[in-house]
Amino acid sequence: MKLIRNGNEFILKYGGETILEYSKDRPMIYAGRGKEDVDMYRGNYKIEDYVTTRRPLSVTDARETQEGLILNLEDEIILTLKLSGDCAELFFEPKNPDINRFWLRVNADDNEKCYGCGEQMSYFNLRGRHFPLWTSEPGVGRDKTTYVTWRSDVENKAGGDYYNTNYPQPTFVSTKHYYLHVNSTAYADFDFRNPDFHELQVWEVPASVRIEAAPDFIGLLEKESAFFGRQPELPEWVYNGLIIGVQGGDERSFSLLEKTISHGIKVSGLWCQDWCGKRVTSFGKRLQWDWQYHREMYPELPKRIEKLHERGIKFLGYINPYLVNDGELYRRGKEKGVFATKADGSDYLVDFGEFYCGVVDFTNPAAYEWFKDEVVKKHSLDIGIDGWMADFGEYLPTDDLVLYNGESPMKEHNRWPVLWAKCNYDALKETGRLGDVLYFMRAGGAGSQKYCTLLWAGDQSVDFSIHDGLATVICAALSAGMSGCGLSHSDIGGYTSLFGNTRTKELFLRWAEMAAFTPVMRTHEGNRPDENFQYYDDTDCMERLARMVDVYTMLAPYMKKLVAENAERGIPVQRPLFLHYENDEKSYDIRYEYMLGPDMLVAPVYLAGQIQWEVYLPEGSWIHLWTGEEYEKGSHTVPAGLGDTPVFYKKDSQYAPLFADIRRKHGK
Amino acid sequence: MKLIRNGNEFILKYGGETILEYSKDRPMIYAGRGKEDVDMYRGNYKIEDYVTTRRPLSVTDARETQEGLILNLEDEIILTLKLSGDCAELFFEPKNPDINRFWLRVNADDNEKCYGCGEQMSYFNLRGRHFPLWTSEPGVGRDKTTYVTWRSDVENKAGGDYYNTNYPQPTFVSTKHYYLHVNSTAYADFDFRNPDFHELQVWEVPASVRIEAAPDFIGLLEKESAFFGRQPELPEWVYNGLIIGVQGGDERSFSLLEKTISHGIKVSGLWCQDWCGKRVTSFGKRLQWDWQYHREMYPELPKRIEKLHERGIKFLGYINPYLVNDGELYRRGKEKGVFATKADGSDYLVDFGEFYCGVVDFTNPAAYEWFKDEVVKKHSLDIGIDGWMADFGEYLPTDDLVLYNGESPMKEHNRWPVLWAKCNYDALKETGRLGDVLYFMRAGGAGSQKYCTLLWAGDQSVDFSIHDGLATVICAALSAGMSGCGLSHSDIGGYTSLFGNTRTKELFLRWAEMAAFTPVMRTHEGNRPDENFQYYDDTDCMERLARMVDVYTMLAPYMKKLVAENAERGIPVQRPLFLHYENDEKSYDIRYEYMLGPDMLVAPVYLAGQIQWEVYLPEGSWIHLWTGEEYEKGSHTVPAGLGDTPVFYKKDSQYAPLFADIRRKHGK
Repeated sequence: MKLIRNGNEFILKYGGETILEYSKDRPMIYAGRGKEDVDMYRGNYKIEDYVTTRRPLSVTDARETQEGLILNLEDEIILTLKLSGDCAELFFEPKNPDINRFWLRVNADDNEKCYGCGEQMSYFNLRGRHFPLWTSEPGVGRDKTTYVTWRSDVENKAGGDYYNTNYPQPTFVSTKHYYLHVNSTAYADFDFRNPDFHELQVWEVPASVRIEAAPDFIGLLEKESAFFGRQPELPEWVYNGLIIGVQGGDERSFSLLEKTISHGIKVSGLWCQDWCGKRVTSFGKRLQWDWQYHREMYPELPKRIEKLHERGIKFLGYINPYLVNDGELYRRGKEKGVFATKADGSDYLVDFGEFYCGVVDFTNPAAYEWFKDEVVKKHSLDIGIDGWMADFGEYLPTDDLVLYNGESPMKEHNRWPVLWAKCNYDALKETGRLGDVLYFMRAGGAGSQKYCTLLWAGDQSVDFSIHDGLATVICAALSAGMSGCGLSHSDIGGYTSLFGNTRTKELFLRWAEMAAFTPVMRTHEGNRPDENFQYYDDTDCMERLARMVDVYTMLAPYMKKLVAENAERGIPVQRPLFLHYENDEKSYDIRYEYMLGPDMLVAPVYLAGQIQWEVYLPEGSWIHLWTGEEYEKGSHTVPAGLGDTPVFYKKDSQYAPLFADIRRKHGK
Repeated sequence: MKLIRNGNEFILKYGGETILEYSKDRPMIYAGRGKEDVDMYRGNYKIEDYVTTRRPLSVTDARETQEGLILNLEDEIILTLKLSGDCAELFFEPKNPDINRFWLRVNADDNEKCYGCGEQMSYFNLRGRHFPLWTSEPGVGRDKTTYVTWRSDVENKAGGDYYNTNYPQPTFVSTKHYYLHVNSTAYADFDFRNPDFHELQVWEVPASVRIEAAPDFIGLLEKESAFFGRQPELPEWVYNGLIIGVQGGDERSFSLLEKTISHGIKVSGLWCQDWCGKRVTSFGKRLQWDWQYHREMYPELPKRIEKLHERGIKFLGYINPYLVNDGELYRRGKEKGVFATKADGSDYLVDFGEFYCGVVDFTNPAAYEWFKDEVVKKHSLDIGIDGWMADFGEYLPTDDLVLYNGESPMKEHNRWPVLWAKCNYDALKETGRLGDVLYFMRAGGAGSQKYCTLLWAGDQSVDFSIHDGLATVICAALSAGMSGCGLSHSDIGGYTSLFGNTRTKELFLRWAEMAAFTPVMRTHEGNRPDENFQYYDDTDCMERLARMVDVYTMLAPYMKKLVAENAERGIPVQRPLFLHYENDEKSYDIRYEYMLGPDMLVAPVYLAGQIQWEVYLPEGSWIHLWTGEEYEKGSHTVPAGLGDTPVFYKKDSQYAPLFADIRRKHGK
């Protein structure tokens, strides 16, 4: 990385490409003032900004010091630019307290592509669009042209749009071989619409911006993940089979477990999200947000878990960082003063959809400890639970909430998922259960990487829609991977069923076919179990599912290697093609195929009614997993009936014998 | 009006209220630069702005001169403030050519209300919302929560929103007793959301802003209309009865005329919009945009018109300022070079929905003359036509269009409806037909007042929806009235029928009941005549319609007085209650009742299934038109079954005997 100066003007270059450029005629930083209007309804945000001032800041003075190049931006902001090898850091010191809007322009080229910004569900390459970065509900439908989105908007303000995500992150990777991270949790909006610059908007003067480069993308992801921290490896037991998501109490759940096993489906874990009890709302079946096992629905759960463990099966539960105001833990938490309050000192209760919860104030060390010890450890870990969905984290209200640390909730909102992740992580660390217990999260932010044992892609609609169905979890895994989070999975069959949209057997199976080639396989009954297809009601489906789970377990040696690579080097398990084929121009535009490690290419069928599928293969000789047929670089139409989702492996892979074993057992 | 100065700071006051205020801590003008993104699809615009700079301008120098107070705004803009009596004019001279965004802040109070901005369909009091001012299609549904809007958005980008209007005008009236007009046709957005200021955004530095005050609203409207020019009176013949909108050719139209008359419905005019031929598209029945009578559908039309005239019935047609590219007039116009072109000199053809038209360039005097003489005079007036719908005017494209006068189409777009109005006006004036011929327009702008013989409220949906149904035409008439346009009417029964939304008999009759108390009664078959209720298919409906038309004709002496008042003083025929009851606080919030002149109050039933209706009456003794019952000030629930739309008149009106006659003939 090279900094070229000319008086107050400068250019930051890497490998011949300009990353930053400031000259009198080409401002790099704009600053000003705005007033936001934030409307939250059940985790869905309508955010508008009224920018009253905005102007470019000129460099009025530049001097080299030991700390780096110090640039005075009209006495409004002092910028210190520190260059060290292939890493540039820009530190900003605001001098004018009125500034609460900040725009950084980064050079762009026509051909450049950008990826990341956390977990993006709709678009992998970010060019041509802008991405508000604010953790929220992901949206139901996420496409204003669909009926489900419209109805969700009208009835729940919940339709969402392409950029809605539980896990936003102000970080992107450019095909110019750098990643850029804005060190701020304030509301941000990264705009990749302009031909010659990206404009990164932040609702504060950020503490710093980090730009690090590497000659190739693998090296770049190593650097990025070194900076954010890396995810630990998955527990060994996940590779034993499927985590089945069932519910409805002890009797129903355990008998469905037996039914599943009796149909030859290998089960690694039994996940009962309603271990804590249930609550029925107009949305569907919800949970009792009082995080302890429900004595009536799951009597003597600890003993039940013990029995499961004897059979090598794990038990998973569910928690989130809110406590319902009619629950016992809420009462106890209130005694301890763990909840964030309103300005008048009263509890701030958040509407989660026909019930109301207190927000545990994680900025208060005592509250954080209490939740970790009393809830995560005592009520989950200590009764033998092996994992849980660590749900939510996106609902920190911003209007009248007072936090212990005195910070504005507008700045803490995006940090919340990370605090929530860390709370889970610390509980495991302190009890020595890291590497053994698995929690999975949908919310995230910069820093989640280290603290989140597994991402799950959130609440897809139970359909094949491009912006909220099966396809989105591919894009989600790839963009999260470019953001430093390389372990992702999803609800097999999707989750949200509203307005007559229900899951089909085909959807469930297509999803399972894909999930076999992701780090973890887990089912979910969805928000309306009774109205939607469930694998356990269909013998044929169970046979097909058993096959895919077996494929997954057979893949374990290869998968473990990839997971280890993610833990050691930050190379995601699911990878965009260009990570391994930098010179293949076409590979940069592929959103719905992925490399499962260096040797396997997966092209999930994400549409209904397909019997064949168009696949793009990069350089090399590729063996079709199910037939053993050999293919070369290029576009191919391959058979892709149910059960035959296109998967290929490299002919010269050292795992070729393993892959061939899979074919012998499960191929055509 | 008073200007109070203190060095460079000043306050403009009227009657104790502050209108403008500038001090160092309270900027009045912001200026900057933006880049718009305008996407037009069949008259529906998606307009986004990317504001790169915006800053408040300080007054750096102030001096009194003979021309007024000259204020230097940081050498960016020179502002000359001229005060004359109760009128202040602000003239702006831009010194920095980079400025293309301009914001003026006008003082506001919590209790203040504002009205106008042209013809607004959804909201009469503008406070609490912002109003983009850009002539466009009005939207189908205009309410993102309705199915019709959603489908229109998805299929045609045509759903619209509360602010969509064919007739925007950068003028508003404040309850502080002033009107303010921004002298610019650039894109504007008037923002009335802030508690202590209104912010008027204009996409250029406007030539001037005019603020004129008067002690009462009647006086204020006189001044406003004196400034804009006033509408001429309506032709005498309109009071003879109903203008029936029928189509389908000579035989069908004239036989429906006879049928209408034979059922006792007084007819003033026969309006055949398809006099020029028809064209069937997926939207419904459209017209042949080649503005001459169709020899096959209407053979020997001039003779037919003569016959009608002998019976005292008028004939009306239809024209608009575009010519379809497969028509004869297009061919002739092209020979004359009357069309606006693309930058490369080729014709700019506009998509009007499955057919394409040339845009007659009204900034080219020769083109203007040609259209006026060849189309309006020769093909309409000269064959005896007595009026027409002067449709459209909102579609001036802004992307690649080159105009004769060299102006940017972004600035001419909002002027187009006025040029179009003037073209019709000049044709009448030059032929001496003004006061005899009636054309009605949906598009408008500042200046339309003088050139537009009658407004029509555009293309309502055939329903009772609040944002696109019957209710909107009340709001439209009142806001247009506050903008200086006091003659309005609408399609009885609405126009747009899409996505299964069809007209009922009830809707038609409710609309007719209201229309009897507007300047003109006219029916429309709608865009899909065959699928919608038509009065002529229903004997009972014709009886009821005959009654309402008779009421309308009986009202003529009173109506003529009001129309004359509008022509002489600019007092609209349909008036908000507060125009006559300034001290009645409640009257300022009434959006759906109106005064028909000083003596009559109309409270149209704008919802389905009503048998009674809540009415608010201001000070005085009021006689219920249909029953003769007397009511006093206050809220009353009155019977309002079909046929009994609530109407009251002042007990002491000099027209009381006339109103009593109506009751005797048509009351209960």
